[in-house]
Amino acid sequence: MPLKTIKLIIEYVGTNYCGWQIQPNGTTIQEILEKCLEKITGEKVKVHGSGRTDSGVHAEAQVAHFRVDTRMEPVQFQRALNSLLPGDIGVSEAEEESHDFHAQFSQKGKRYRYTIYASPYVSIFEYPFVWHLPYTLNVDAMKEAATYLVGRHDFAAFQASGSDVRTTVRGLTKLEITQRDGKITYVFEGSGFLKHMVRIVVGTLVDFGFEKKKPGMMKEILESKDRQKAGRTAPSQGLCLEKVYY
Amino acid sequence: MPLKTIKLIIEYVGTNYCGWQIQPNGTTIQEILEKCLEKITGEKVKVHGSGRTDSGVHAEAQVAHFRVDTRMEPVQFQRALNSLLPGDIGVSEAEEESHDFHAQFSQKGKRYRYTIYASPYVSIFEYPFVWHLPYTLNVDAMKEAATYLVGRHDFAAFQASGSDVRTTVRGLTKLEITQRDGKITYVFEGSGFLKHMVRIVVGTLVDFGFEKKKPGMMKEILESKDRQKAGRTAPSQGLCLEKVYY
Repeated sequence: MPLKTIKLIIEYVGTNYCGWQIQPNGTTIQEILEKCLEKITGEKVKVHGSGRTDSGVHAEAQVAHFRVDTRMEPVQFQRALNSLLPGDIGVSEAEEESHDFHAQFSQKGKRYRYTIYASPYVSIFEYPFVWHLPYTLNVDAMKEAATYLVGRHDFAAFQASGSDVRTTVRGLTKLEITQRDGKITYVFEGSGFLKHMVRIVVGTLVDFGFEKKKPGMMKEILESKDRQKAGRTAPSQGLCLEKVYY
Repeated sequence: MPLKTIKLIIEYVGTNYCGWQIQPNGTTIQEILEKCLEKITGEKVKVHGSGRTDSGVHAEAQVAHFRVDTRMEPVQFQRALNSLLPGDIGVSEAEEESHDFHAQFSQKGKRYRYTIYASPYVSIFEYPFVWHLPYTLNVDAMKEAATYLVGRHDFAAFQASGSDVRTTVRGLTKLEITQRDGKITYVFEGSGFLKHMVRIVVGTLVDFGFEKKKPGMMKEILESKDRQKAGRTAPSQGLCLEKVYY
């Protein structure tokens, strides 16, 4: 049978999962996909994601690939997976790729969305996907502070402590903040993100929204490269992986 | 303590409930609200809804009222209820009304939305709120058939069998069908609805969408007053109570 490389676009509500990557304590998206593929193909299949998502983080379009000797077409894998997957995980697309495609190493960048609801009440339909802050935030102050972060910088101040990466320099090409009524949306685009980077940036921006810090201080925080200078880590349920670029 | 009439606007994901109204087998929204109000006030409180919703049906703005001797303000009831209610039920508004207000008897009409996804794949974020039909539907044919239903008619053909009401004449002021990609939305507005009426109308319209019937046949079905002539009852998960008019 021919060896095929299949690329999947996967969406999930992260609420009930310990993130993407297989780990000993708790159920993960990757683990569930591999178990379903084992049922379908009768063999162990390794699923490679574009990268991890934290426990509780959602995805509208996570990308993954696997290689398997099969006569099955991608759309048949999609249908078979969707019939086996739980209701909070879905495969929205499946297609064959060349064998040099790798969900993680071929990617060029990612887009994340973080959502805050700054109002006394948040709808139960939105609640699982937002950070509810029942206060008024100064959105203009957050927008001004955010301008200091766009570009190629050492984001060491916005990395979870205890991380171990070669370099903490990353290119943030976009950080767009929009508001509609109490809903504040932060869209991040970049070539790469450090561990918890989006959530720590949002947690820090909220301090500017509360006017605890003047917008210009964002430059000092960035240049300090000190996690202690940045704000708290915003909760995972407000974060969603929107797109992976190739 | 003064006697107060409190009006609540309630939203819920109906998936895990046996509808609005208290019944012996299974948990209902009304029952949960009454239990929470008993915890808050220390006494049994009867909650009156604007009407029933079927098992599995959602609501963005169900309306209910209760009367209680209390010094608590409406917003305090809202906060107390929201802290006790499960995550799939929320009180979005609470206000004091005059004592002649009655959620059911003061209402002037209702708006319902039914959603179909006519595409091979439906997003897991939408799935719990739609009827997934992985086929192509002729939306123009459904729109034409729908025109026969708008107005004041005897809707006996579109009533669940075994119902027992004084009259089956109802005024349907609006039946608007819109399509965006595979998502087809049906908005119903009227002074009153028979049991399962919206779902039977949608199930019947789908037969026209599949071109099993010519649009003009809708007139015959309506005039037959025969439930057997109409189509199947569309599943409850696609239905949402959008608004109650007073």
